[in-house]
Amino acid sequence: MRTLNRFSDELRTVEIISNFNPYAEGSCLIKCGNTHVICTASVDDKVPLWLKNEEKGWITAEYALLPRATSTRVSRETHGVGGRTHEIQRLIGRSLRSIVDLSVLRGFSILIDCDVIQADGGTRTASITGSFVALYIALAKMVKEGKISHNPIREFVAAISVGICHGEFLLDLEYVEDSSAQVDANFVLTESGRIVEIQGTAEGEPFTQDDYTHLMNLAQKGVALLIQKQKEALKNVEI
Amino acid sequence: MRTLNRFSDELRTVEIISNFNPYAEGSCLIKCGNTHVICTASVDDKVPLWLKNEEKGWITAEYALLPRATSTRVSRETHGVGGRTHEIQRLIGRSLRSIVDLSVLRGFSILIDCDVIQADGGTRTASITGSFVALYIALAKMVKEGKISHNPIREFVAAISVGICHGEFLLDLEYVEDSSAQVDANFVLTESGRIVEIQGTAEGEPFTQDDYTHLMNLAQKGVALLIQKQKEALKNVEI
Amino acid sequence: MRTLNRFSDELRTVEIISNFNPYAEGSCLIKCGNTHVICTASVDDKVPLWLKNEEKGWITAEYALLPRATSTRVSRETHGVGGRTHEIQRLIGRSLRSIVDLSVLRGFSILIDCDVIQADGGTRTASITGSFVALYIALAKMVKEGKISHNPIREFVAAISVGICHGEFLLDLEYVEDSSAQVDANFVLTESGRIVEIQGTAEGEPFTQDDYTHLMNLAQKGVALLIQKQKEALKNVEI
Amino acid sequence: MRTLNRFSDELRTVEIISNFNPYAEGSCLIKCGNTHVICTASVDDKVPLWLKNEEKGWITAEYALLPRATSTRVSRETHGVGGRTHEIQRLIGRSLRSIVDLSVLRGFSILIDCDVIQADGGTRTASITGSFVALYIALAKMVKEGKISHNPIREFVAAISVGICHGEFLLDLEYVEDSSAQVDANFVLTESGRIVEIQGTAEGEPFTQDDYTHLMNLAQKGVALLIQKQKEALKNVEI
Amino acid sequence: MRTLNRFSDELRTVEIISNFNPYAEGSCLIKCGNTHVICTASVDDKVPLWLKNEEKGWITAEYALLPRATSTRVSRETHGVGGRTHEIQRLIGRSLRSIVDLSVLRGFSILIDCDVIQADGGTRTASITGSFVALYIALAKMVKEGKISHNPIREFVAAISVGICHGEFLLDLEYVEDSSAQVDANFVLTESGRIVEIQGTAEGEPFTQDDYTHLMNLAQKGVALLIQKQKEALKNVEI
Amino acid sequence: MRTLNRFSDELRTVEIISNFNPYAEGSCLIKCGNTHVICTASVDDKVPLWLKNEEKGWITAEYALLPRATSTRVSRETHGVGGRTHEIQRLIGRSLRSIVDLSVLRGFSILIDCDVIQADGGTRTASITGSFVALYIALAKMVKEGKISHNPIREFVAAISVGICHGEFLLDLEYVEDSSAQVDANFVLTESGRIVEIQGTAEGEPFTQDDYTHLMNLAQKGVALLIQKQKEALKNVEI
Repeated sequence: MRTLNRFSDELRTVEIISNFNPYAEGSCLIKCGNTHVICTASVDDKVPLWLKNEEKGWITAEYALLPRATSTRVSRETHGVGGRTHEIQRLIGRSLRSIVDLSVLRGFSILIDCDVIQADGGTRTASITGSFVALYIALAKMVKEGKISHNPIREFVAAISVGICHGEFLLDLEYVEDSSAQVDANFVLTESGRIVEIQGTAEGEPFTQDDYTHLMNLAQKGVALLIQKQKEALKNVEI
Repeated sequence: MRTLNRFSDELRTVEIISNFNPYAEGSCLIKCGNTHVICTASVDDKVPLWLKNEEKGWITAEYALLPRATSTRVSRETHGVGGRTHEIQRLIGRSLRSIVDLSVLRGFSILIDCDVIQADGGTRTASITGSFVALYIALAKMVKEGKISHNPIREFVAAISVGICHGEFLLDLEYVEDSSAQVDANFVLTESGRIVEIQGTAEGEPFTQDDYTHLMNLAQKGVALLIQKQKEALKNVEI
Repeated sequence: MRTLNRFSDELRTVEIISNFNPYAEGSCLIKCGNTHVICTASVDDKVPLWLKNEEKGWITAEYALLPRATSTRVSRETHGVGGRTHEIQRLIGRSLRSIVDLSVLRGFSILIDCDVIQADGGTRTASITGSFVALYIALAKMVKEGKISHNPIREFVAAISVGICHGEFLLDLEYVEDSSAQVDANFVLTESGRIVEIQGTAEGEPFTQDDYTHLMNLAQKGVALLIQKQKEALKNVEI
Repeated sequence: MRTLNRFSDELRTVEIISNFNPYAEGSCLIKCGNTHVICTASVDDKVPLWLKNEEKGWITAEYALLPRATSTRVSRETHGVGGRTHEIQRLIGRSLRSIVDLSVLRGFSILIDCDVIQADGGTRTASITGSFVALYIALAKMVKEGKISHNPIREFVAAISVGICHGEFLLDLEYVEDSSAQVDANFVLTESGRIVEIQGTAEGEPFTQDDYTHLMNLAQKGVALLIQKQKEALKNVEI
Repeated sequence: MRTLNRFSDELRTVEIISNFNPYAEGSCLIKCGNTHVICTASVDDKVPLWLKNEEKGWITAEYALLPRATSTRVSRETHGVGGRTHEIQRLIGRSLRSIVDLSVLRGFSILIDCDVIQADGGTRTASITGSFVALYIALAKMVKEGKISHNPIREFVAAISVGICHGEFLLDLEYVEDSSAQVDANFVLTESGRIVEIQGTAEGEPFTQDDYTHLMNLAQKGVALLIQKQKEALKNVEI
Repeated sequence: MRTLNRFSDELRTVEIISNFNPYAEGSCLIKCGNTHVICTASVDDKVPLWLKNEEKGWITAEYALLPRATSTRVSRETHGVGGRTHEIQRLIGRSLRSIVDLSVLRGFSILIDCDVIQADGGTRTASITGSFVALYIALAKMVKEGKISHNPIREFVAAISVGICHGEFLLDLEYVEDSSAQVDANFVLTESGRIVEIQGTAEGEPFTQDDYTHLMNLAQKGVALLIQKQKEALKNVEI
């Protein structure tokens, strides 16, 4: 059995603390077991240059680990951002943009920052799930301030990792599971069950179509639970 | 209908010229319509530092576009490699490693270079398909020279893009199709039909599970044809 | 009067949470009003190259702000670390080394990381005060594990900012006070009242010798209180 | 005797394929023996800032090798361009500017890209000779499109390497000859026999005035033949 | 006793050659014993972006060592400027700004360059003392040319190092003294005796309040002598 | 006529001050009119990695301008060295290596630093001429210290610029002449009249063979005079 008697299809304990940061337009601290991420959403009243003549706004993301987020210290990326970081940043940005009507955001950019305070696997999926909350709050604040007409979020989105580990299908991988998985997949799914992003990778042996179906089912279950947590975190939040 | 009267489930004309480069241990020029990529495999008798104490070799990849591979000139990445390039490089490396028994390669690294001479969509998938050929030749040469006991390739692998464009499911997207697609996916599949890597992205609206199934079917058809082309290119190649 | 009815010679509320980080050898979260800093101490069993032939260990520090630590987002230093960051990092390292018998640490380096989660003035002094706690715990752990013979800390050290603001002498400046101060000084002092580091800067008009004496007296009072907080935080800490 | 029974005053086989690249305004693939270079000319309707107030246009060049252009793989210059590359880029730019009436180009820049697919000595001279063809086509296209009044090329220009190798004077050095040459010189000459650029370097012993005269005579012969090849390549080219 | 029979409270021989550089608006060569620094002041009729809407000018500084300024060659900082350099540059800029009425400079920036030709300790303090002379001349020239209404310097400023070395209090440390000092302090003081900047650092043991008072007294004596030298250097200078 | 009534075939006043730097193994300050360069030679008892298995030493060079060496301030190259600097550095290194028997230097590297204090044209040729003096002294010191068996310099070398300016052939170009020259050439010649390096560039119109001969004659005259100056500077130098 898994750490803390967790079942193979069970999420780690999830906690989302809204408005964690006093300065950002939207923010939360998301804890998925020992993975803790501070997510902030910063509103900028400019759009990137290449978007100047299009009638929409933009959402982009940055991601970083504190050096001791992990059991062995990792160096700060002060001389350029590495490949893994780039991939994650682009994934977070794409995932959030997919469920937002960017035309409502016209003239504005929102920059999401995901700073991992502790990392025990699933930092990119926790970042997406937490960023959604930070984004939601920031957009609600923009509505309240009259910057945009209505909250342009079309539906909720969350992300979860699944994998095959020693032949077993697991939901929400911890670091030790992730690093020994044969198959490792991340699903970004919406509340209505639609797919925003699939990333499935065979680390060792390729996997079959049936394996894929099994993994997708696990992910759908996990995302449903995460979206419930997001709703709780947003219920009484002060805008 | 598509450019050149192509059907929605039809590949572009594929040509693979083996041993294109006179110096590399393995190489080819792959042409998929107007997308042309030179793939080379360079054998190094060292492994990365972090692999020193493990009993296996390694395969990694680099990817670049010539500045005028595209209709508008793109700048050379002389001050650090961008996020998209990193993502593609990592994908090529992972895809090739998944079908190779790395323990046979113990003590050796193979560095794949994919240089895009012309780009008309699908450069990452063409790079994977072509890199496999370059890798195969380099490994065969290593066997011939007695560096390794046998060719460690477990099965053939190839990659193809698919997408949904104006509501239509398309195989092997050209640039104009790719840039207007609502859903854009890359599949890296093996000859036996197993999955090495799935990357599916909703650029606009999220997509459904049924859409996914449709895309996968298209991709399987495309990969089967590409693997046939790889075999032809390797049939009479001089090792 | 100051924010929250604070007297001119009064510290902000200080809270130090020891062992905040589950992975680092020593750590704390220090909160001085709205300035929050995570301090970790990572033990490395190597010394810098230039110290190879000397019979002592080393302590060094890194410092960074999360982008939304401040009310306006600041960019990450991913393309080289700026002048202010360098100054602060060097100051933290020097301050800690001054109260440690480095010969006891022979063969080891300790890398302090100070990551500012929220910034409301005094981040460098909070970093020093918090780093001392993280360092103390890490050294105690090294003693327990038999890596070093005894805890090489000679005496406690803490740091505080003082300044002259609209003609008034203030202890522990918040951001709004700091940015309008005519004179801005940081004192790093030991428990026995000795000076580790003085940095006094006239932002506008130069200041007099009498002003200096007044500032020093304020700082001594502040440091005494901070050292008391450090002791409380270390009292029942689990090593 | 030299490789392939080449005489000491004989060029390698030269082939110039015009319009090799489908996207660039002008392009060719030049093959000089085993040295193959793709040359493209990209037209930009801007001039560099420092030229803003002068009544002329500009021509500049970039140069790179594919990693396996050479028998041993060379790293990509992704962290800054090295000294040798800078020298070659500046030489190509200067050579082309010297035979163009830049005042006709007013308001436009042309960026030449020379990407070496295979390198067997003489890559910089092949780049100049090939770039001239790419430039010629791009300028002809600009005339056709009414961007400039007439083709501002004053006369043809080409470049060749010569050297002294084991005491023998050689035209058009291959890599093995180049790397063992005592004297190594590159001449950029015009059709009328005038000098655009001379670069003569004693790798070992300095050389005499008579040696120089001998080298110049060889170079003049080589350049005359190269210009003939350029004319053939431009004869039926589609603009 | 010290090198050259110097007393513990004696300056090294100081020489300031005004207008050393023929191109800069203000310049000098300052020699303090074997420490030689070329200081230039360059006037720019722009202000930094962030100052655009404020009614004042700006003064900033750069600092560098020639590689053989020191007995062991130090590498050029061609890949980013190090922490020590940053600290010194910021100190020089702050020191000069503190004695200038920046509102008179409105619309102008002055960039100070301090290039150390030879380094034997005290390069940062010599840079400040010399920079003042270069700045004074540049400002006088601006007055003469009608760019500013009057010389905005409020009073003279100079800097000196002091320290405790083998228990002895020393003025104006040479390199050998500096590198063995227990306490090392730099004072930037004005002619009227006011403090612009204090930097006091315990390299080994912390120091006492009395030690501080002793060091300050030494520094005041040194600065008084240096200001006399500045006045001599400026007396007959050609503007 | 030229500035200061200089004839077209006349050098500027040359002054070479040997042992200018107290720390370097060899050094001089060379003044050619208003062009002043500090040249130092630093001896290192290592060779570059790629030379490890060859039985010879190495000589290399670095070159930089102080920011106010020129009438308009130029930025420091703190983020990578530009193309022009690279070219000059490589030229200086090649020129010095050509007249040294590197096998005598086995196991040693000499790093030449040329720092331009003032620039009025001809900085690269002054750097070569001055570097020779610095190198000569450093090598003589190595002989004296028994590091090498004898001074490995085969013959003297110096460099000079020549050009065609408004139709007139000029020796030793000042900046104003250089920037308006149609033809600009640098010759590195030995005492026996042999050629080490020729760099001839047509800035505007290409030039003829006769022009080249005329320029060479001028350069030979200039180099003869410079070598005389080198000999005077070395005559009584203290090793």
